[in-house]
Amino acid sequence: MDLSAVIHEPKSALSYMFDAKTLHLRIKTKKNDVKSVTLLAADPFNWRPTVDNPEIYEFALETMARIPMIKEAETRYHDCWFAELTGPSWRRVKYGFVLDDGNRQIFAGCHDFIELPEEWTPPADHSNYYNYPYLLEEDLYKAPAWVKDTIWYQIFPDRFSRGAGRAAEDALPWGSVERDGNDIKFGGNIQGIIDKLDYIRDLGCGGIYFTPLFASPSSHKYDTRDYFSIDPDFGDNALFGNLVDEAHKRGIKVMLDAVFNHCGYEHPFWQDVLKRGQESPYYDYFYILDPNKPVEPDLSSRGYLGEHLNYLTFGYTENMPKWNTGNPGAREYLLSVAEFWAKHYKIDGWRLDVSNEVSHEFWREFRKRIKGVDPEIYILGENWLNSNPWLLGDQFDAVMNYEFSSPVIRFFGTQHKNQEQYSVSDFKAAVNELLVSYPKNVTTTLFNLLDSHDTARILSLCGENADLVKLAYVFLLTYPGSPSIYYGGEVGLSGDEHHNRQCMPWDPKLQNKDLYQVVHKLIALRKQYPAFRTADWNWIAADDSTGTLIYRKRAEGDTLYALIHNSPEAQEVPLPAECRGQGFIDLMTGQPVEGKAAVQLSPYSFLLWHSQETK
Amino acid sequence: MDLSAVIHEPKSALSYMFDAKTLHLRIKTKKNDVKSVTLLAADPFNWRPTVDNPEIYEFALETMARIPMIKEAETRYHDCWFAELTGPSWRRVKYGFVLDDGNRQIFAGCHDFIELPEEWTPPADHSNYYNYPYLLEEDLYKAPAWVKDTIWYQIFPDRFSRGAGRAAEDALPWGSVERDGNDIKFGGNIQGIIDKLDYIRDLGCGGIYFTPLFASPSSHKYDTRDYFSIDPDFGDNALFGNLVDEAHKRGIKVMLDAVFNHCGYEHPFWQDVLKRGQESPYYDYFYILDPNKPVEPDLSSRGYLGEHLNYLTFGYTENMPKWNTGNPGAREYLLSVAEFWAKHYKIDGWRLDVSNEVSHEFWREFRKRIKGVDPEIYILGENWLNSNPWLLGDQFDAVMNYEFSSPVIRFFGTQHKNQEQYSVSDFKAAVNELLVSYPKNVTTTLFNLLDSHDTARILSLCGENADLVKLAYVFLLTYPGSPSIYYGGEVGLSGDEHHNRQCMPWDPKLQNKDLYQVVHKLIALRKQYPAFRTADWNWIAADDSTGTLIYRKRAEGDTLYALIHNSPEAQEVPLPAECRGQGFIDLMTGQPVEGKAAVQLSPYSFLLWHSQETK
Repeated sequence: MDLSAVIHEPKSALSYMFDAKTLHLRIKTKKNDVKSVTLLAADPFNWRPTVDNPEIYEFALETMARIPMIKEAETRYHDCWFAELTGPSWRRVKYGFVLDDGNRQIFAGCHDFIELPEEWTPPADHSNYYNYPYLLEEDLYKAPAWVKDTIWYQIFPDRFSRGAGRAAEDALPWGSVERDGNDIKFGGNIQGIIDKLDYIRDLGCGGIYFTPLFASPSSHKYDTRDYFSIDPDFGDNALFGNLVDEAHKRGIKVMLDAVFNHCGYEHPFWQDVLKRGQESPYYDYFYILDPNKPVEPDLSSRGYLGEHLNYLTFGYTENMPKWNTGNPGAREYLLSVAEFWAKHYKIDGWRLDVSNEVSHEFWREFRKRIKGVDPEIYILGENWLNSNPWLLGDQFDAVMNYEFSSPVIRFFGTQHKNQEQYSVSDFKAAVNELLVSYPKNVTTTLFNLLDSHDTARILSLCGENADLVKLAYVFLLTYPGSPSIYYGGEVGLSGDEHHNRQCMPWDPKLQNKDLYQVVHKLIALRKQYPAFRTADWNWIAADDSTGTLIYRKRAEGDTLYALIHNSPEAQEVPLPAECRGQGFIDLMTGQPVEGKAAVQLSPYSFLLWHSQETK
Repeated sequence: MDLSAVIHEPKSALSYMFDAKTLHLRIKTKKNDVKSVTLLAADPFNWRPTVDNPEIYEFALETMARIPMIKEAETRYHDCWFAELTGPSWRRVKYGFVLDDGNRQIFAGCHDFIELPEEWTPPADHSNYYNYPYLLEEDLYKAPAWVKDTIWYQIFPDRFSRGAGRAAEDALPWGSVERDGNDIKFGGNIQGIIDKLDYIRDLGCGGIYFTPLFASPSSHKYDTRDYFSIDPDFGDNALFGNLVDEAHKRGIKVMLDAVFNHCGYEHPFWQDVLKRGQESPYYDYFYILDPNKPVEPDLSSRGYLGEHLNYLTFGYTENMPKWNTGNPGAREYLLSVAEFWAKHYKIDGWRLDVSNEVSHEFWREFRKRIKGVDPEIYILGENWLNSNPWLLGDQFDAVMNYEFSSPVIRFFGTQHKNQEQYSVSDFKAAVNELLVSYPKNVTTTLFNLLDSHDTARILSLCGENADLVKLAYVFLLTYPGSPSIYYGGEVGLSGDEHHNRQCMPWDPKLQNKDLYQVVHKLIALRKQYPAFRTADWNWIAADDSTGTLIYRKRAEGDTLYALIHNSPEAQEVPLPAECRGQGFIDLMTGQPVEGKAAVQLSPYSFLLWHSQETK
């Protein structure tokens, strides 16, 4: 047994409070190294008098429960084992693991590994057990319940829809050029979005994430001038109020973008610092590097790596001076922005731009303040990589799950720069890694996406092959979490990473109706069947030779089998035993499935079979 | 190369902010599997225009620094590699590791391991690098600076010293019985402690940790009746004020015990709940399990596992009802206690009883409130196991480092229940595991101890062999952190885990003066030489056949070699080359050391050699 590869850590994704009375435990062992794992667990205070001397107590080893762990997932290098302890006897838990490879049995404790005899009892050294000290509801990670049932639609406002009324003065005719840079505008506006709320509702989306709407010179508006005003390019605050009301009438939540890492160059506080230097009351709201040099960027020494900057910025972007959230005035100002839109406009979520570069301390305060306005507001960080340190219950409800996009794009996408294509087994291992890298209650609220305004679009990544895109949507919409569709993705809007913010093609001739129908159907199915949404995940098949994978999901007596055939070949693929029987409905056709031993699959196709029984 | 054993995790003890401008990175590889590790690191925003198209940017791989990592420590199963990045170019860091085993070179990134050619350049897939998003001072773990230079003296007040004035009415004559149970008292009091402050100062201790002083019926006083009053057994609040003043005059800090997990049965809030049930305003300050049953314990069904309890308690102790810190009233009450003693009595630290069973949320608020009174107050949790989740900067400054005691007792101690004795190499591996399990800035402020009121005393653990105890003190006082001496340990007070709170033997005939002299000298040396206190640690030798280990510590041009011979045999032990030269002073004798190739060691002996040069 390879003990160097055994991984467990208390108070992590491997040991966490799932709900107020449930503890989840995981341990990783080297792949294929261990045949079974038994969890030993007891209340740490189970001490009783010794037989010899009733004044002397000893730990009551006989109260140690022996719980077989299930093999939850195989990652590329590990097997991950899982057990759930639930109920009042598991408020406090002392625990360890017995690893059995068929020859040896090893107890894995918090200090030592101990070789056990064949007929073992729990090791008597009670200091060598791990501890989950107490399940306390105050520390429970808890996102708003509505999130896990919500499908998002992401809108880049200048490019989604142009309605009547106010719009950018210098706007080009809709879609008139292929360029989609920050310097040009197409006149998308809030009235245009209001006009299309029925479209979004009919697609089945229950929430809209807007990239910034506040006053700002660029078309992306991540360089805020005024956090308290809707940009005149888009409308005004009153019209935004209408938008929220109209969205809510249709059961659609509204999430805004909190750009609190930096402001824009035109922000009055920054302008005041430029004008008055250290005399400005806002001087310490930012990070000025050398107080003896001018604050202004030195354009004569301008470089890509910030050579010209005497202040901290987002990236090396001179027009995005970084906020110093360690300054109480700056912090209070930004928190007042967050409260303003929550209180007065009843928004339902804040997406936090560049959230990993802002302090944990700020986000803790942000959470208290925002949840104080309304505990049902969703707090979504932009963080791109694994984000457990932000998801402990005290900061975010979720992050944009680019860790989900990554394996999906490597498997369904075909246009990889500097990356290997994932095989079926690579993909399975990477998805498993993702599933076990977060607590299960976090997994069901993460914001899953195929693409966004910061990535190439999925159609482009799939080499313009809409059949591959459909498979990616199938995966997205059968995966636990809160899925997001980037505007236009549903009708085949494409674009590489430099052309990912093009105008929404409202002309039906420019829309892929077939793709739309599939996405529309998948969304409806996800909303109808809990099995689409559950984090309970079982791979049934993953075959590199055929490019086929099958997974089963179960929830509330409802069973889903998803078969994804990611191959350019039409093939007859044998079915595993459990999929051969009667009783399935093909969800895409609504027809019963005939029991059979194999299915004929066209290139890049999928099947979703459902049963009302627990199959 | 065994990739299943490669361990790295951002924002953990393997990737942390050491100070406001310094990042520390560690990676673990399987023991003896890898010959060298190179850290690749750059600012994540080092993008520049491509040669072909200046509008298209690419990550500037040529800015990726290649930094050789040092092998910091070998644990039982891993080698741990370390690098430090410091200065303004390392505010934001994107990084990965190249592992070289002499045959293969593997890049370890956040998603994939990539095999590299012999002549490698940094891998171009920039999404496969880890990220430390930003060093932000707001999130820096920062304990009061005085802590790492402080040596503590722990006092159990009923048993330390009986002075004039108030004392427990039913007190037995000092040390008159060997029993030391919770039901008997010996009359130790605050006046007695004041009388002995010179003793504590002369020993060299700069802080006293008092187990509880507040009003409570038991002798241990962990069952508080009144958090705002010094127990009449010990004196009164005014006398305590004198104690603090007198301690401060002698440069001694005062730390009190915050028993906030539970109160005592006699606490008026609990008594009110017993009397009025759900009518009591304090009903929700506690956790009553079944509102339809009586709150009182059902003594007829009393059992060791809490069968008789209708409320949550510490352990299954009926006279210690657990506080519900999720209740705002209870929370505010406890915080007001903490503030009261800090504000009005100028205490210097709070030790938090059973801190791991109280919510993180409560401790975050506690920290804000206490540091609001005085940022120099030390916050010390009782937690027994690894405690990184509490040491992120938002909760505790330190924990009682029983993870330190554990290997020390297994190596120097001889009386092990259900545990194997540690060999020299076991000990070295376990200490290394401890050193790399915390950030270095945390290691230097943890509260290190050999024993306490909750363990057997070190002399008892060492089978009454004072020479072994000296070795344990040598290790304690050369180890980074804030060491603590449990009253009487310095004069050879013994006692197993059931006799660990006996009266301090003030009669010189009962004191081991030789042990005292050694401890006294070690404390003085630790205070004099920074090398004793630094976390910079290098093992020079660790020989299972002789029982000898040598380690080197360096700080500010000051070098310490500690040699510990943990063996019953007198032996001639060869010295490693670097210890053979001239220029050392033997710190225990003050004499220069003659350069020689070996030393003659008596059983259970040690040497501390010092040089003013960097050796």
